[in-house]
Amino acid sequence: MKQREEKKIIIIGAGLVGSLWAVYMAKEGYKVTIYERRSDIRKTVISAGKSINLALSNRGWKALDAVGVGDEVRKFAIPMYGRVMHDTQGMLTYQQYGNEDQAIYSVSRGLVNARMMDMAEQKGNANIFFEHECRNVDLEKGIVYLTNKQTGEQFEDKGELVFAIDGAFSAVRYNAMQKIDRFNYSQNFIADGYREILLPANADGTYKMEKNALHIWPRGRFMLIALANNDGSFTCTLFMPHQDHKYSFDKLTSKEKVNGFFKEVFPDFYEMLPDIAEEWAKHPLSSLAIVRCHPWVSGRVALMGDSAHATVPFYGQGMNAGFEDCTVMSELIQKHGSNWEAIFEEYNRERKPDGDALQDLSLENYIEMRDLVGDPMFLLRKKIEAKFSSLYPDKWMPLYSQVTFSSIRYSVALKQGAIQREIMDKIMAKADINETWDNPEIMDEIISLCE
Amino acid sequence: MKQREEKKIIIIGAGLVGSLWAVYMAKEGYKVTIYERRSDIRKTVISAGKSINLALSNRGWKALDAVGVGDEVRKFAIPMYGRVMHDTQGMLTYQQYGNEDQAIYSVSRGLVNARMMDMAEQKGNANIFFEHECRNVDLEKGIVYLTNKQTGEQFEDKGELVFAIDGAFSAVRYNAMQKIDRFNYSQNFIADGYREILLPANADGTYKMEKNALHIWPRGRFMLIALANNDGSFTCTLFMPHQDHKYSFDKLTSKEKVNGFFKEVFPDFYEMLPDIAEEWAKHPLSSLAIVRCHPWVSGRVALMGDSAHATVPFYGQGMNAGFEDCTVMSELIQKHGSNWEAIFEEYNRERKPDGDALQDLSLENYIEMRDLVGDPMFLLRKKIEAKFSSLYPDKWMPLYSQVTFSSIRYSVALKQGAIQREIMDKIMAKADINETWDNPEIMDEIISLCE
Repeated sequence: MKQREEKKIIIIGAGLVGSLWAVYMAKEGYKVTIYERRSDIRKTVISAGKSINLALSNRGWKALDAVGVGDEVRKFAIPMYGRVMHDTQGMLTYQQYGNEDQAIYSVSRGLVNARMMDMAEQKGNANIFFEHECRNVDLEKGIVYLTNKQTGEQFEDKGELVFAIDGAFSAVRYNAMQKIDRFNYSQNFIADGYREILLPANADGTYKMEKNALHIWPRGRFMLIALANNDGSFTCTLFMPHQDHKYSFDKLTSKEKVNGFFKEVFPDFYEMLPDIAEEWAKHPLSSLAIVRCHPWVSGRVALMGDSAHATVPFYGQGMNAGFEDCTVMSELIQKHGSNWEAIFEEYNRERKPDGDALQDLSLENYIEMRDLVGDPMFLLRKKIEAKFSSLYPDKWMPLYSQVTFSSIRYSVALKQGAIQREIMDKIMAKADINETWDNPEIMDEIISLCE
Repeated sequence: MKQREEKKIIIIGAGLVGSLWAVYMAKEGYKVTIYERRSDIRKTVISAGKSINLALSNRGWKALDAVGVGDEVRKFAIPMYGRVMHDTQGMLTYQQYGNEDQAIYSVSRGLVNARMMDMAEQKGNANIFFEHECRNVDLEKGIVYLTNKQTGEQFEDKGELVFAIDGAFSAVRYNAMQKIDRFNYSQNFIADGYREILLPANADGTYKMEKNALHIWPRGRFMLIALANNDGSFTCTLFMPHQDHKYSFDKLTSKEKVNGFFKEVFPDFYEMLPDIAEEWAKHPLSSLAIVRCHPWVSGRVALMGDSAHATVPFYGQGMNAGFEDCTVMSELIQKHGSNWEAIFEEYNRERKPDGDALQDLSLENYIEMRDLVGDPMFLLRKKIEAKFSSLYPDKWMPLYSQVTFSSIRYSVALKQGAIQREIMDKIMAKADINETWDNPEIMDEIISLCE
């Protein structure tokens, strides 16, 4: 730990990002107190109810490794090297995500969060107070108004700085920041919800499907996905409109209808899980929202992670983006030292466009996952891109790789992705592309379009 | 009053729309209780600080006259038949709003509100409780949780229905509706703020400018406007970016700078008000926001007026749209009787697109007012449109007239306006339009473009 006068900071929220940020701030010589609304998940049964298995990728690992906690997570992370698409006949198609050694990693949200809390306490010397609710914050003074939910006691605490890392429906943002003049805010629920389904292991503990891939059943307007757990099971998630569609959640009102739906549209899945209707009832139907706001800082307070830029999960970047907020803020500490006015100002100015871009990318990728990956022409497009990229890596990194396997700013990736899409639209518009795609002339044409 | 079992409803907010809605509901046989956070403006000096003189137009009058309160407002409303544009040399240009007898009406917000409260009490038999704050609402049960701000007493009240007509930063929306699942919400502050300035009457009580017109000093990125009051004064408002522009509020930091600014860009105004720097300090700099949300109803509660669709003031439609909400809801009562589930469902579904369109129109009209009305080509365009409209009134009602002098749905007006703009773009693109505009061929060409 650096030799510096120990100053106290407060973190609201002991979630994934809050716990990691505690480690960062402890390394910078700050004394860290965390207040968390929920009880200690390490002492209770982890609810898989609203978890969505998470996919850790480059940005996440970078932030974890920078403070030496990556290896703790690697112990239980399962690499996924590509997507396996399941069509309505149960036929499988495989699409590799990047190079052969590039993978995204399936991890349980609960498990990562529990280990991050350990790290916050052990490496960050943080005191975590559970079941403490933040009622309000004095943004200028850094005073946090709290309620101990077990005793009902109301009290206040004061930090040099306060980091509001308390999630998509942040109490700090709602109770304090939303009330300041000229605070822009939006919460926008998309038309689709999700429901989790657990696909158990075989009786001998083995996996029912390839574990090192992300499984997708793309069905146009909706999709099912599955990510492996360490115990041989898969956490599966059905994403679908709430209502107003031929296939929507409001139509699945009985066991018979759930069974009929899975038999019809996911027959190979139904075969693996014939008691789907029982599993169906174990998890609630949940909603999905994009939350945008600005500014992300006010007085002594900064929003990080979902409280600043909650997104829909379709690019698997929510946690990764939150972890990357730590990387960004940490780099600004290296640049500005303890001049937090400068740090907050630059964080607010420079990181916000990346939060917006992350959200745009997440929405775009839902269409790719649920619809396009089932289209042979789309897979051909990706194959041509991959070939060009391997021949001319300096000229072309596929958008998925920019987002997932690099630290290129999300806002830059979004722009580059749009340029690439325009180029590939021209290539794919060629009448004979199915026959000619592997010819050198196609590569030459892409080069000329790149210039 | 209709003979019906008297049912109690609660209105939160005794503003313009809340007070009017009390009259409507009393006529339908409901017993009305209103809770208002502020004190009774009729007993205090009316603050002109955040008023923006309002422009009553067709939709507003229609809603007022339907319950017989229009004449009370006509007593002090000042008709404005057109705009007077002031250029940087003090030269004036006049543009009539509609036909010769069509006008919008300047009224003081405070005065209208006071008379509407009288009406609510006298015609609506409403009990208005001032200085009562709404802490929360049980949306399903219609229970309102209140605090008497004078005594500190906390209590609850229950209505068959609750109408949240409590303004752009509605307590009902914030405390209750924003927390329900899948409630979409956004508050978006525009880059511009405003500051009011009072231009007093001449010593003999006469007006310093034409009273029956809305005065505009269009300056591209910013503008000053003035609306007449009954006492010979004008309420003027400067709209301008908060920062980051050659002319923005953050630069006007001293009396000298304010004086210099007005001398330079509004010389004829400065001549009328040489002690502008004194007046300047009397009113605060305020912000402007668009608030969108959906749904507008939940359980027994409905949002009306600004709480549902707060907008920026550039089309002069905020109050008119709120009053029109009363017209719409009242028509649904005539259609569905006391089936409030059906009334709320249809109100929510049918009125929301008009709220959105009103906001889009308001934003568009800022550009027209601050920039285009100073452009001779824009005025020519309006002249051609007016001529065509007077020749073929069935084929063409100018957008301004649709919004201001008709009850055409805002969403329809927005669409028709876009079509008209496309047609006029083609006409204005003609090289010799300055010479040929009055030729019959131009009218013929517009007819053919209309088909």
